[in-house]
Amino acid sequence: MPSKNAYGADNQQERLDWWIVGFVDGEGTFSISFNRNSTTKFGYQIFPEFVITQGEKSVAVLKTIQKKFKCGKVYINRRKDNHKEDLYRFTVRSQKDLKKIIIPFFAKNKLKTAKAKDFDKFVQVLEMMSSREHLNQIGFAKIKKIAETMNRKQSRILRDYTLDPDRLGKI
Amino acid sequence: MPSKNAYGADNQQERLDWWIVGFVDGEGTFSISFNRNSTTKFGYQIFPEFVITQGEKSVAVLKTIQKKFKCGKVYINRRKDNHKEDLYRFTVRSQKDLKKIIIPFFAKNKLKTAKAKDFDKFVQVLEMMSSREHLNQIGFAKIKKIAETMNRKQSRILRDYTLDPDRLGKI
Repeated sequence: MPSKNAYGADNQQERLDWWIVGFVDGEGTFSISFNRNSTTKFGYQIFPEFVITQGEKSVAVLKTIQKKFKCGKVYINRRKDNHKEDLYRFTVRSQKDLKKIIIPFFAKNKLKTAKAKDFDKFVQVLEMMSSREHLNQIGFAKIKKIAETMNRKQSRILRDYTLDPDRLGKI
Repeated sequence: MPSKNAYGADNQQERLDWWIVGFVDGEGTFSISFNRNSTTKFGYQIFPEFVITQGEKSVAVLKTIQKKFKCGKVYINRRKDNHKEDLYRFTVRSQKDLKKIIIPFFAKNKLKTAKAKDFDKFVQVLEMMSSREHLNQIGFAKIKKIAETMNRKQSRILRDYTLDPDRLGKI
């Protein structure tokens, strides 16, 4: 629906929404990682996550985003690496929140960078997990292949947790 | 003025504007660097620049931004470092364009992260340069101090081009 009042709450909300899309195009990550977990069928747990990282000086925007989405958590990441200030991560890990809140938001308000392709792949993996395809070997292998074509950051995560061929068979 | 048609061109434009603010909060840099130049009074040329960097896959958004602002250039940066793809930089270096286009845009559409403070400092330096304060020693030293408090990237640029004490005297 069109805004009832261009200076009112609806307009403010739309501005924030588009600001968030731009910010996520810059700083957001749709990540599919594989965490070692010997209790799972293939030795790894598939771990979808939406993340935005900022330095301490800009932690306020992460809280604004958390308040807007009404989900997710803000964690401090004290590994300083080359950074002078602590890093903060806004992260949504709940598959329910990803499916009910995050995915519909970015399905409506489309990303403009190549990150849009990562988002599409993220949606595809979440859908496969919802229909429990990750529990069979073909589905698990397909998710692995999708994750490998996602951006460098995700690929690195996947490479760090290379699959255990004894558990997984040929995929 | 309120949008005449919430689905029309004005609304599209406003969405793009807010997307740009978010994207610049993530990826943009307001930079004051000091380039060695022996023909200048203090041995360095003060070099204000607005930059957004993206990988090749997202070069389209840099062109969208260039088209929106009707200024600046998109350069390829072939230094690959750890990146798999070439980097592209949208950059506005013309002081006229910075003052007439870029600064008024972000004065109207305010940044939400700590980058807003860098923007304020950037504006202050441009104003000082317009009134030719950088040509006297006190003004030059003041700009140097302002640039030093800007974000890491700028500080690094400044450190790489440390001032020549013989030319500059004590500042």
